[in-house]
Amino acid sequence: MRKQTYIKTAAASLAAFGLLGAAPAFAAVDSETAYVLNTFSFLVNGALVMWMAAGFAMLESGLVRSKNTATICLKNIALYSIAGITFYLVGYNLMYLDVTGFIGSFSPFWSPDDAEALAGTFADGGYSASSDWFFQMVFVATAASIVSGALAERIKLWSFLGFVVLLTAIIYPIQGSWVWGGGWLAEMGFSDYAGSTLVHSVGGWAALSGAIILGARKGKYGTDGRVHPIPGANLPLATLGTFVLWLGWFGFNGGSVLALGSAASAIEMANVFANTNLAAAGGVVAAMILTQIMYKKVDLTMALNGAIAGLVSITAEPADPSMGMAILIGAVGGIIVVLAVPLLDKLKIDDVVGAIPAHLFAGIWGTIAVAISDAEASFVTQLIGIVAIGAFVLVLSTIFWFLLKVTIGIRVDEEEEVTGLDKAELGLEAYPEFGRGSQTL
Amino acid sequence: MRKQTYIKTAAASLAAFGLLGAAPAFAAVDSETAYVLNTFSFLVNGALVMWMAAGFAMLESGLVRSKNTATICLKNIALYSIAGITFYLVGYNLMYLDVTGFIGSFSPFWSPDDAEALAGTFADGGYSASSDWFFQMVFVATAASIVSGALAERIKLWSFLGFVVLLTAIIYPIQGSWVWGGGWLAEMGFSDYAGSTLVHSVGGWAALSGAIILGARKGKYGTDGRVHPIPGANLPLATLGTFVLWLGWFGFNGGSVLALGSAASAIEMANVFANTNLAAAGGVVAAMILTQIMYKKVDLTMALNGAIAGLVSITAEPADPSMGMAILIGAVGGIIVVLAVPLLDKLKIDDVVGAIPAHLFAGIWGTIAVAISDAEASFVTQLIGIVAIGAFVLVLSTIFWFLLKVTIGIRVDEEEEVTGLDKAELGLEAYPEFGRGSQTL
Amino acid sequence: MRKQTYIKTAAASLAAFGLLGAAPAFAAVDSETAYVLNTFSFLVNGALVMWMAAGFAMLESGLVRSKNTATICLKNIALYSIAGITFYLVGYNLMYLDVTGFIGSFSPFWSPDDAEALAGTFADGGYSASSDWFFQMVFVATAASIVSGALAERIKLWSFLGFVVLLTAIIYPIQGSWVWGGGWLAEMGFSDYAGSTLVHSVGGWAALSGAIILGARKGKYGTDGRVHPIPGANLPLATLGTFVLWLGWFGFNGGSVLALGSAASAIEMANVFANTNLAAAGGVVAAMILTQIMYKKVDLTMALNGAIAGLVSITAEPADPSMGMAILIGAVGGIIVVLAVPLLDKLKIDDVVGAIPAHLFAGIWGTIAVAISDAEASFVTQLIGIVAIGAFVLVLSTIFWFLLKVTIGIRVDEEEEVTGLDKAELGLEAYPEFGRGSQTL
Repeated sequence: MRKQTYIKTAAASLAAFGLLGAAPAFAAVDSETAYVLNTFSFLVNGALVMWMAAGFAMLESGLVRSKNTATICLKNIALYSIAGITFYLVGYNLMYLDVTGFIGSFSPFWSPDDAEALAGTFADGGYSASSDWFFQMVFVATAASIVSGALAERIKLWSFLGFVVLLTAIIYPIQGSWVWGGGWLAEMGFSDYAGSTLVHSVGGWAALSGAIILGARKGKYGTDGRVHPIPGANLPLATLGTFVLWLGWFGFNGGSVLALGSAASAIEMANVFANTNLAAAGGVVAAMILTQIMYKKVDLTMALNGAIAGLVSITAEPADPSMGMAILIGAVGGIIVVLAVPLLDKLKIDDVVGAIPAHLFAGIWGTIAVAISDAEASFVTQLIGIVAIGAFVLVLSTIFWFLLKVTIGIRVDEEEEVTGLDKAELGLEAYPEFGRGSQTL
Repeated sequence: MRKQTYIKTAAASLAAFGLLGAAPAFAAVDSETAYVLNTFSFLVNGALVMWMAAGFAMLESGLVRSKNTATICLKNIALYSIAGITFYLVGYNLMYLDVTGFIGSFSPFWSPDDAEALAGTFADGGYSASSDWFFQMVFVATAASIVSGALAERIKLWSFLGFVVLLTAIIYPIQGSWVWGGGWLAEMGFSDYAGSTLVHSVGGWAALSGAIILGARKGKYGTDGRVHPIPGANLPLATLGTFVLWLGWFGFNGGSVLALGSAASAIEMANVFANTNLAAAGGVVAAMILTQIMYKKVDLTMALNGAIAGLVSITAEPADPSMGMAILIGAVGGIIVVLAVPLLDKLKIDDVVGAIPAHLFAGIWGTIAVAISDAEASFVTQLIGIVAIGAFVLVLSTIFWFLLKVTIGIRVDEEEEVTGLDKAELGLEAYPEFGRGSQTL
Repeated sequence: MRKQTYIKTAAASLAAFGLLGAAPAFAAVDSETAYVLNTFSFLVNGALVMWMAAGFAMLESGLVRSKNTATICLKNIALYSIAGITFYLVGYNLMYLDVTGFIGSFSPFWSPDDAEALAGTFADGGYSASSDWFFQMVFVATAASIVSGALAERIKLWSFLGFVVLLTAIIYPIQGSWVWGGGWLAEMGFSDYAGSTLVHSVGGWAALSGAIILGARKGKYGTDGRVHPIPGANLPLATLGTFVLWLGWFGFNGGSVLALGSAASAIEMANVFANTNLAAAGGVVAAMILTQIMYKKVDLTMALNGAIAGLVSITAEPADPSMGMAILIGAVGGIIVVLAVPLLDKLKIDDVVGAIPAHLFAGIWGTIAVAISDAEASFVTQLIGIVAIGAFVLVLSTIFWFLLKVTIGIRVDEEEEVTGLDKAELGLEAYPEFGRGSQTL
């Protein structure tokens, strides 16, 4: 088939639907094929979400100083590993099995029910249990990735990983059960398609709590009240990380259709892909224009965070908005980031990579925006969900951070911070041959 | 199933087709399943093409000097964002809707006709309109990415982005309508499967026009007539970018089958994947051997551009050639790059990343090669298409570049070029801790 | 569909299978749809495996010194190109066509039998021949990638590429025919799902042979008997490479189901994805804990190799183990790496990136572990396969390395090694503006 032929097909297709009105006779997807397609969607889209772990690793590697780069790399691969294991041990059951009201089942260990495989049968509209586990698991990891960037350059490695265990085993699954597990917020009608609140704001709240308790990096906020920018060591890596996140987000939002076994679900997934892309584009362009106006220069890191904020903003409802609306929703996300970064600095909350503006603030915006684009969603219910989950995560995170602080401690000592975490905690350097970053900054 | 069992299945399969002659009875793909598969192919392959935007960003980041690296990163994420928005605003309609002769519809804004979703019906052989939009949109972005590399290190940020708007909103869609929109070149029988001419040469012509009008980078061509090579700052990133492009090209060419709803389309897609891979391999090996013979050394950047040239060469017809022919088509592309890079230098056309040889020259070769591998294609018609599109893009690009030059200007001033665009235009450094690139070069 | 609704579907699905016992009536996948799905699985999963070539390139780029970085990039793109061409020329036929006992057909050149496409027919359970070729080809390349890392920083470029030709054209396909081609080991019942032995150990044995014959890098092992660590130049790239490998491994193991045309194969693929992910996670966590205990510090490169070792370990049987068992199998892989790296140093075998522990030793472990998780596999047969393939590869590799050594030589001269291969063999620098790596180390 050649490209030039397809427009005629499209035209015929449009004619058949839009104009003639009468639906053509058609043969429906059979139940086993639907099962295969649903399952394959979870696997392909889930693999794209797993790839976001690499995106966060590169974004954060590029935005920290070279003396802390290897440590942030290690944290990212470790947190992704831990998230998978805790979600297997307790998280999945807490979030999805036998959810009644506020929490699921606390039976440890989870394994797919392979009755399907053994019996050679399957449900219409079903999917492999393992494929669902895989797709849900990569979402937990995303929430943890958000925290690592905000708290970089001064948190202890093992304390951070301890928090990851608590976040992925307890905090994330319990609040997740309230909505995606079918709990009380779902029953109220709270709507969060792929997790502006359930994933991104959760990571953002945990990061905010941690950033306040941990305190700012030495030298970030001068005694004279001035903010001293601490530039990242490797901006092409940060750019790469953002592109990886953008690509992975097609899986994040697209896979959240949770089906591919019908024309309706395929159409929905396609709308999600297009809207996700345009919201990110809107975030980039809005952030660039606003920084040009405000500062007479465009900042690369703001453009990157604009993309992420656009993606987070559309995540609560990527299927319903028109394409033009998706651009606007993303653009507001980009604007939020540009305005919120200096605001956090004013509050002396030191967020190394801008995770709190991009994931928490844009996540709140995106969750509210559902009430604009989706007639079934209620503004009040959306607010209740945002506040309830925010309060839950903030309180639990704060307790956990304090517990870690008073037991094993959460912050490296001042000398280690000056030397850099790579030498102090890992005994190596990320770029041993390039300049002498650890001495100049 | 274990791997060792499959060869028997394959043998049985071959026996059933090749030897027995008589076709086995079979059940055909039903129309809704075909619809889902066609749509999913656009989404998965389109996501791979989107990933090429990251590939260009990394390739170009690696091949510029460190003082211009953040700017090229910003240009790449910005151009991808702009391409999506302009294609939504006007491009898609200009290229595909109601094409009669030379141009489509100029009705602004485009949104998918969701009659399908609402009615729950769908055409046999159809696909979601949004999935097609997504797949076509990522191709526009590719054309713009090609330009950014060639003109790096001296073009003004906003002038470049202004050109991107014109390229993606006007130049690309209009010439695209001539072939893929079903316009006059399609009616003549011009054949360009996935865009050796429509995407890669278009980017190349626009880059050529820009490179001539913009002039060479300061110091590239000495007054003594000698060429001073300006090495890229980060060759592993350039290598990564090439691998990303290679991977993305499976989607670029494979998705251009435009269907996955039948065994015939799946077979075609598989042939496209295999040929695409082997053409790239042929380009690498040919470029390596030729540089070894000509210079007694192998140049990494030539090998990378050999891969890209091989990919561009097979893009005009990746389905029909045998595997051996695909290797040869790609190898010629690799040879073209090695010979054309010094030729451009002789003409003092400064193409920072080798985009013009790899995309324009190899694109012309690939489009001509269709007449060799595809009996239905005519050598004369292919030449008419190449010349018509080349002339159109060259004339329009030149007008646009001049308009930009006399209004907002297109080149940074000499001092800014010496300082580097990162400090001059963005006020930051891509690698603030690594060496002092901006002072040494 | 919204996420909150799906748990009910899952519950209904579980009820239908697990509890009610009686299978619901269902419509099976039709034969053409199965053909399309099988083919598409090879293409999507094969593209992920191709992506592993980029992963190895980045991992190795990050773990060598900056003076040898461009050369390792070139080797990686060249070996992937060569592997494709040799597998087309002879490899595929040697491995899969008319295998009788110890070897397949030696008829040069291979092209897909397109009878299917022409006749418009296809077998039930079949797939496109090209898609299978593509999927098998990327596995050959993986074996070659393993060798390049171990022998980096002192091997001559063209000698290495000469070995790649021999490995991919002769060594890999012949031993591959013994199992996946249906040869004598397959008949014995040797089980290696996706290639712990057939791919990873093969690369490892070839690397071991090469590392011994080539000798250690100058300065690695002091005359005083002490080991001098030679740190890699760019650890974020090594981290990126590991994430790329992890992602690609979903295709490596998942595609090795060799089918997607039934609910059973989709369920198997989903189990493979989940287990592959958890084995890697187990490898990371085990390597981190063990290095913390042994050295009071966590080493990033050990964590990365822990992930790879976990992945290699599960590759021989990713479908059968429970999720908990997958974590354990991977964890043992991680422990093996941490213990084996110093062991190799004690033997003065200089493996630059740790490829031999991660691919050979973990590959042996994974192949043995099949006998634990799969009741049908025999411990003795697994050992026979490991030893037979190991001996074959070791003997042939050693012969080939010696032939290369006495003809064109395999090691750069001492001065070139000190200068770095980039300047000596390519005449360029990977990072011309960053520090002065080649002088400091």
